[in-house]
Amino acid sequence: MRLAIDVMGGDYAPREIVAGALQWAEQSEDTLLLVGNEYLIKEELQLYQYPTERLEIIPASQVVEMNESPASALRKKKDASIIVATRLIQAGQADAVVSCGSTGAQLAAAIFILGRLEGIDRPPIVASIPNQAGSYSLVVDVGANVDCKATQLLQFALLGKAYASIVMQLGNPRIGLLNNGEEEGKGNSLAIEAYKLLKDQKDLNFVGNIEGRDLFADKCDVIVCDGFIGNIVLKNMEGLAALVAQACIAELGRLPAFFERFDYTRVGGAPLLGVNGVSIVCHGSSKREAVFNGIKTATECVKKDIINQQKIVLQTTV
Amino acid sequence: MRLAIDVMGGDYAPREIVAGALQWAEQSEDTLLLVGNEYLIKEELQLYQYPTERLEIIPASQVVEMNESPASALRKKKDASIIVATRLIQAGQADAVVSCGSTGAQLAAAIFILGRLEGIDRPPIVASIPNQAGSYSLVVDVGANVDCKATQLLQFALLGKAYASIVMQLGNPRIGLLNNGEEEGKGNSLAIEAYKLLKDQKDLNFVGNIEGRDLFADKCDVIVCDGFIGNIVLKNMEGLAALVAQACIAELGRLPAFFERFDYTRVGGAPLLGVNGVSIVCHGSSKREAVFNGIKTATECVKKDIINQQKIVLQTTV
Repeated sequence: MRLAIDVMGGDYAPREIVAGALQWAEQSEDTLLLVGNEYLIKEELQLYQYPTERLEIIPASQVVEMNESPASALRKKKDASIIVATRLIQAGQADAVVSCGSTGAQLAAAIFILGRLEGIDRPPIVASIPNQAGSYSLVVDVGANVDCKATQLLQFALLGKAYASIVMQLGNPRIGLLNNGEEEGKGNSLAIEAYKLLKDQKDLNFVGNIEGRDLFADKCDVIVCDGFIGNIVLKNMEGLAALVAQACIAELGRLPAFFERFDYTRVGGAPLLGVNGVSIVCHGSSKREAVFNGIKTATECVKKDIINQQKIVLQTTV
Repeated sequence: MRLAIDVMGGDYAPREIVAGALQWAEQSEDTLLLVGNEYLIKEELQLYQYPTERLEIIPASQVVEMNESPASALRKKKDASIIVATRLIQAGQADAVVSCGSTGAQLAAAIFILGRLEGIDRPPIVASIPNQAGSYSLVVDVGANVDCKATQLLQFALLGKAYASIVMQLGNPRIGLLNNGEEEGKGNSLAIEAYKLLKDQKDLNFVGNIEGRDLFADKCDVIVCDGFIGNIVLKNMEGLAALVAQACIAELGRLPAFFERFDYTRVGGAPLLGVNGVSIVCHGSSKREAVFNGIKTATECVKKDIINQQKIVLQTTV
């Protein structure tokens, strides 16, 4: 497998990105394409002994900064690392791209270079959160789309269904709608409209509204929401879980088992769904272990052929 | 002080509501007006020895159910306990109302019977969450208004400022906007518009956007958001904190100090802001301790004259 790594994106780029990529190269048979400033990458590579035959440097002279507008960055910075990396998929030279840089730029690059799947207006990001049953639930969208229409939430549900079917090997995943109350009719105008669409959609195992307190209750496999609230809720959980970790270790010496599973470095990356290629979004604050796990997620998405699986679900249900 | 208690609202009504009210009556000099089904209340009172001279039963023959539309309930059920209780304030017979029943009905009763403060379109509910500095932050709105305009978020900020000034005794409370990124320009269209209004508002100590992971970081005293997301985030925190409690006690024998502060029974109630009277919203699942603490919150709001304090802030800044 050939994996394009955006070496320039992220708070700890390029050092931690290169380190995570090398770690993956050592224990796999994949070829890693390190995309970014050639000089900086070579400098980093000098720090390690590495399997040269499975590492390639792909020069890219620009970087999209975190505070830049993705749309204008895409226009102005044709040689940005995320663009060059995403083009490698389009050119058939890479099977997937992994980045810890600007999510907006990664999303824009995926849309404009790889294209959207048929029936999808706005590609969402899917993330997994641990549940009390010892498994995980997926949340779609966790940050790609801050203003959504009800039809887009329905698309998120279909993509989430496809992804859960593949990675969690579920026959007909349970779909829930994040809401401020359980009863039908609860919610803001978006949620009320989305509820109707989800309920009316054939072949969708819609289980109704999911309240904030039930996100860990294993009431459903896929939780649908807009990316504004999805991002806030996900970060809130991570923030609170980090406090649990700190407080438990300081006061009690260790962490309860459930909260070990909140460590995002173990998951490493969240796939963009609804685009015609595997693009893995990693935390901006990723260090080598998270990068390693983000690359691992990418290889699993390629092996499990998530693109075709999404196409099948979209063709049969939209 | 005279306190109207909606004895019929809540998952554990009337038993736990009556018990909490009696507990308050025993340790205070306040008079408690128990509003609801006379027969049921008398039956409950037989279980206790109680200070009869400071307890009054105010008959109300109807109850607003949790799944009823508040607007139609208000029209049809003129003798509902929450309506009778709220009318006692209007009639000068009570200083505050406390309810564990339908929040929508309590809000509607407050708006139509007590009236809104000048300059306020939609009254919000304020809740407090513990922060790492050992203090609390306020969140406005946590569920009263699921679809908001930017001007309403500005009003929430002003009401939150007034309330924080009083209860937290802060000179000029720091106001933050819940958002999916820190930088100006981040957010959904509502957040982007609200950011501008908050930034331009004179005499408001606006500190910018607050991300989900920073809700506990003591970056601001008042966190402004719409009631849809506020409700989901608050319930999510409570859900996660309950899991912390369960896991820590089961696996480690006790709870880290920070998480003890998440126990909502200790706070007990959240005031409605922006209405012309003290109306305290309690959890539907409140038991006696939470009811007791809700009544305590009511007495503090009356003592601190939160209505006039809100009027002063609104007059000087709107």
